[in-house]
Amino acid sequence: MKAAVMHLYDEKLENSDWVVYQDVPDPKITNPSDVIIRIGGAGVCRTDLHVIEGIWRDHSDLTLPHILGHENAGWVEEVGNGVNNVKVGDKVIVHPLMTKGYCLACRRGNDMHAEDSIFPGINANGGYAEYLLTNDRALVKLPDNLDPKAVAPHTDAGLTAYRAAKQAAGHLLPGEYVVVIGGGGLGHIGIQVLAAMCAAEIIVVDRAEAALELSRKIGAHHTVKAGDGWVDEIIALTGGHGAEAVIDFVGEGDAVQKGLASTRNQGSYYIVGYGGKVEIPTIDMITSEKRIIGCLVGTFPELVELMALAERGLVKLDTHEYKLSDANKALHDLHHGKYTGRAVLVP
Amino acid sequence: MKAAVMHLYDEKLENSDWVVYQDVPDPKITNPSDVIIRIGGAGVCRTDLHVIEGIWRDHSDLTLPHILGHENAGWVEEVGNGVNNVKVGDKVIVHPLMTKGYCLACRRGNDMHAEDSIFPGINANGGYAEYLLTNDRALVKLPDNLDPKAVAPHTDAGLTAYRAAKQAAGHLLPGEYVVVIGGGGLGHIGIQVLAAMCAAEIIVVDRAEAALELSRKIGAHHTVKAGDGWVDEIIALTGGHGAEAVIDFVGEGDAVQKGLASTRNQGSYYIVGYGGKVEIPTIDMITSEKRIIGCLVGTFPELVELMALAERGLVKLDTHEYKLSDANKALHDLHHGKYTGRAVLVP
Amino acid sequence: MKAAVMHLYDEKLENSDWVVYQDVPDPKITNPSDVIIRIGGAGVCRTDLHVIEGIWRDHSDLTLPHILGHENAGWVEEVGNGVNNVKVGDKVIVHPLMTKGYCLACRRGNDMHAEDSIFPGINANGGYAEYLLTNDRALVKLPDNLDPKAVAPHTDAGLTAYRAAKQAAGHLLPGEYVVVIGGGGLGHIGIQVLAAMCAAEIIVVDRAEAALELSRKIGAHHTVKAGDGWVDEIIALTGGHGAEAVIDFVGEGDAVQKGLASTRNQGSYYIVGYGGKVEIPTIDMITSEKRIIGCLVGTFPELVELMALAERGLVKLDTHEYKLSDANKALHDLHHGKYTGRAVLVP
Amino acid sequence: MKAAVMHLYDEKLENSDWVVYQDVPDPKITNPSDVIIRIGGAGVCRTDLHVIEGIWRDHSDLTLPHILGHENAGWVEEVGNGVNNVKVGDKVIVHPLMTKGYCLACRRGNDMHAEDSIFPGINANGGYAEYLLTNDRALVKLPDNLDPKAVAPHTDAGLTAYRAAKQAAGHLLPGEYVVVIGGGGLGHIGIQVLAAMCAAEIIVVDRAEAALELSRKIGAHHTVKAGDGWVDEIIALTGGHGAEAVIDFVGEGDAVQKGLASTRNQGSYYIVGYGGKVEIPTIDMITSEKRIIGCLVGTFPELVELMALAERGLVKLDTHEYKLSDANKALHDLHHGKYTGRAVLVP
Repeated sequence: MKAAVMHLYDEKLENSDWVVYQDVPDPKITNPSDVIIRIGGAGVCRTDLHVIEGIWRDHSDLTLPHILGHENAGWVEEVGNGVNNVKVGDKVIVHPLMTKGYCLACRRGNDMHAEDSIFPGINANGGYAEYLLTNDRALVKLPDNLDPKAVAPHTDAGLTAYRAAKQAAGHLLPGEYVVVIGGGGLGHIGIQVLAAMCAAEIIVVDRAEAALELSRKIGAHHTVKAGDGWVDEIIALTGGHGAEAVIDFVGEGDAVQKGLASTRNQGSYYIVGYGGKVEIPTIDMITSEKRIIGCLVGTFPELVELMALAERGLVKLDTHEYKLSDANKALHDLHHGKYTGRAVLVP
Repeated sequence: MKAAVMHLYDEKLENSDWVVYQDVPDPKITNPSDVIIRIGGAGVCRTDLHVIEGIWRDHSDLTLPHILGHENAGWVEEVGNGVNNVKVGDKVIVHPLMTKGYCLACRRGNDMHAEDSIFPGINANGGYAEYLLTNDRALVKLPDNLDPKAVAPHTDAGLTAYRAAKQAAGHLLPGEYVVVIGGGGLGHIGIQVLAAMCAAEIIVVDRAEAALELSRKIGAHHTVKAGDGWVDEIIALTGGHGAEAVIDFVGEGDAVQKGLASTRNQGSYYIVGYGGKVEIPTIDMITSEKRIIGCLVGTFPELVELMALAERGLVKLDTHEYKLSDANKALHDLHHGKYTGRAVLVP
Repeated sequence: MKAAVMHLYDEKLENSDWVVYQDVPDPKITNPSDVIIRIGGAGVCRTDLHVIEGIWRDHSDLTLPHILGHENAGWVEEVGNGVNNVKVGDKVIVHPLMTKGYCLACRRGNDMHAEDSIFPGINANGGYAEYLLTNDRALVKLPDNLDPKAVAPHTDAGLTAYRAAKQAAGHLLPGEYVVVIGGGGLGHIGIQVLAAMCAAEIIVVDRAEAALELSRKIGAHHTVKAGDGWVDEIIALTGGHGAEAVIDFVGEGDAVQKGLASTRNQGSYYIVGYGGKVEIPTIDMITSEKRIIGCLVGTFPELVELMALAERGLVKLDTHEYKLSDANKALHDLHHGKYTGRAVLVP
Repeated sequence: MKAAVMHLYDEKLENSDWVVYQDVPDPKITNPSDVIIRIGGAGVCRTDLHVIEGIWRDHSDLTLPHILGHENAGWVEEVGNGVNNVKVGDKVIVHPLMTKGYCLACRRGNDMHAEDSIFPGINANGGYAEYLLTNDRALVKLPDNLDPKAVAPHTDAGLTAYRAAKQAAGHLLPGEYVVVIGGGGLGHIGIQVLAAMCAAEIIVVDRAEAALELSRKIGAHHTVKAGDGWVDEIIALTGGHGAEAVIDFVGEGDAVQKGLASTRNQGSYYIVGYGGKVEIPTIDMITSEKRIIGCLVGTFPELVELMALAERGLVKLDTHEYKLSDANKALHDLHHGKYTGRAVLVP
């Protein structure tokens, strides 16, 4: 099959070709629960850039050469002899984790903290390819009105944004505020989830005017141009208190310190983006009773929930289609902020 | 001042004149925390009919003659010498309970279960009058864009519907269903609260086509005409399972048995309306793990939250204005189902 | 193998022989996830009497002849070729439900509400036998210090009591009260779970002095002899308010009405026992904001949690050992209240 | 009256006399809700040392000269004319915050985040004196078996420890672990609260053997001597995962970094002690989904709950009595770690 393969790390992201479009062997069924997916679309994610940079070397068993792509959707091509929940031809979206379902985390519904799991695209070959190997437990059937290439980024970008926004929506009351830092690929999904699931006022902070404009169209009640003084604007918008929830889709640069400063006492600061560092004196944590909460992808049931939102049109992805053979261009366009929303590779 | 005064019970609701429009002494400040409100509007509630029927005799210290009216909004007319949170002229909506704030229920935020409270309109004189005596802790200031007579029914009808819908919204996930039984005075508020606060699909059951039509306009995704077979329709709409939440604004006749039958296993059946009886074998409760939850008005902070929804136009009341001198007509029109939404008496 | 087999229903529980001790074919592995357990002990449960009475005919696919026994523990005897989580010889306790792990309930951790499951002892052959067929997902490995026949009743009696008590402990605060109705087979486990997991004062109601005495030894702070006036005693013990939680392990006779009357406003009444009926006017539900909550067995993770309590000696079962060939005697002794605690059949 | 008065800051804690035992004017009733307490005991707290160091200058409106002492209990000496909940002679413990009860935080039960409050001992005169001025809303009546000087430290040390431990107990399940960093003044209360309110295994880390010995007596299941390798010991004790909850009563030095490292994925790290700094890369927060939660004193209802535990002997304070005139000695003994548990000044 054809695939876009990564052969080298590029720590400073200086190279022009990060992946090579080439022939590789087709994936094969070896376990009863294995499933091969014909890729309809594979989302391009900032995490792919972080993989190329080498950030994930210490956090996973990644080996080179490697096929990127952890945001996948398509059709069931072949199934192992123990698979009963899907059949060949089914249109599916692929949860990013392959789990077995026996550990206590899985049994409690926290499958993304499974003791023994595989994350194709990170520590196994992913979906920048014609076919992907995953397993039966990772598959959510798509309703008629959802197209694989239109929803593929939901499996990670969407799911991560959904999980963070769902947690915030769980405690946000009418009359309260939520700040979304970053109205881009993940942020524009988070905004829609918040608008669908709670009645708090949504404030979006971004440095790009295009992102703020998109944010206003999809549910933001207030937008703030990121600059030196944006914390003051949040404080003013929230009656002097800060927001009850802040969801930080950036997680680097001054976003962290400013995000925490924008959080109201007893409020929650959700970290989704990464690359930076949390630094705060313990006295400030105790006098404020703030909460700092790390957020990582979401569970299989949460992907089902997100698809229910997508089916009803409550969460729409802003996608940009690239041919699989143009994977390098898609990655560079992401790196240079050439589009809002999310790129999808189509074989 | 003028008031509409109830002098007699009427158990079968057969009389033409349930209240007398007459002169009565003005209320007077006697405690430092007392506040007198000039009534802008007083909502007419089915509970007023239940008071006239005598249902509440065993549930409160009601004495005759009595001024009905527990849904009040207006302007601060006079304040006791200990009042600091409002001042004369403030536009306010009146929480139905006068509490002191010292018992553990109040200290925990559950003020509607205060150990020592007064409920004007039930066990003290209410707002079917030009002036109402309440206290400082009952008052929520209204924003500029909300008019007392347009929001008065929120203090009980709205608040009760809000509290039930908020509880349901707290556990309803995308892909799940909520059934609202009764799309009338309380129901039409509950529907809007659910639409604002969760992403579950909303199914409204009512016997009146007008109520179903209104329901569709304000957020219902499905409507079911109440009749013998409506449970089957709910089961079919919900994929054979029943709904994760059922909010019963009727609470009498066959609504209770059908409401429980429409509730999914592990789901919650919220009782708001009353007059009927819950009857279910314990074996059915244990095999289904259903929950039956009684709902009563709401707390002061919940009234603040509801006003935040109203200020932003997320919850609109369908009101019908009557002169205070026409209180009997308003009560009879309610009794005979002459309008959808909610009547308000204006002095 | 030898088994105690039920051939007939006995609606009035009048017969002397409810089961026949006889030879039956050994169970066989047919699916990759199947596991055969050599029974170390099988608990005798009031539900077995209800099965004999025929109460469960309308609630399950039970067919005769039938091997009772849903509370099982022992050693892994044989495994299907897909089983990896246990191996032959492992000492295990058997969760009562065989599930597959693919439906949304399983994926969310609510496996006892699985869409497709088997309940050996109810709708498949159970553990009143030398061997039992179950599957890999039902098995919890036992620590060294726990013996199968000493813990077998935990799989249903223990797990059901645990789940109800855990829910109550989740909201009970210091200074609050919990009433346990019935200090017998399930109750004596519930009391120990409450004592381990919350700091509320525990009040036990039972008609048997022996049960009250046992209760005091294992954690009850107050005991009340069941009689006409026991609700008044609860009200007096709780400062006039009733208890914040009532766990009803009886669920029939006057327990239900009295249990609800003993529940404080905004409190929760948990139904575990069955045979009776909930009957309460809706007006009493709404003015009190009580909650009625059905409780059914528990999840696989909850069985793991219960074994953690048992391993540390925090929950001890009061068991009475019978030979499997004496199953009829064990059942009759249960029926006639000849012992406190729980009987276990040993092959 | 006599009082121990602080006249100067001492940033390096080098002076011998931090307070002066002298005559000062008696406090006076000026508001209807004011109450004057005759001090039975005033706890000595590490926060008093932090006040002397000047750490709180930027976090409060503290002015010199100042009477320290925010952990107070005694008897009602005099009441304002609006006070109804206590009367002269009542034995009471004093919640550290004077609140008014009208802001939304108070109305929701979060009174320690009141918009407008006074914290005697921090930004008003405290209880290192014969008499203290507070208000009616701060007072919890003591049961017969609790003596003011034996419980005074509960108002801050106890309440803070209770609130953190209660939060942890709210999610800790049997089979899980909680680490308590610091088994001293606050820690020894936290351990008892955890033992009373959950069934998790308690691991205590401290550098003092005496604190570890006390910890074992009052509920710790495992103790770890603080040293370079203590994180490894925690990881080993918890099966390689870390603890589901870590409560850090130290909050400075390497405790913060080690506390976070001892927290299991999806676990919660509660900060109670202060002086240090949280520093963690965002990538570590997102891959682990850890939560960092600041904890500050507790609410009035939480003080009532703690007194319920104390009344039943479930939480005992290890106190050391000093005369008020020996306040300097008590403070220096604290500074030099001369005792475990908690010092109390008695006028």
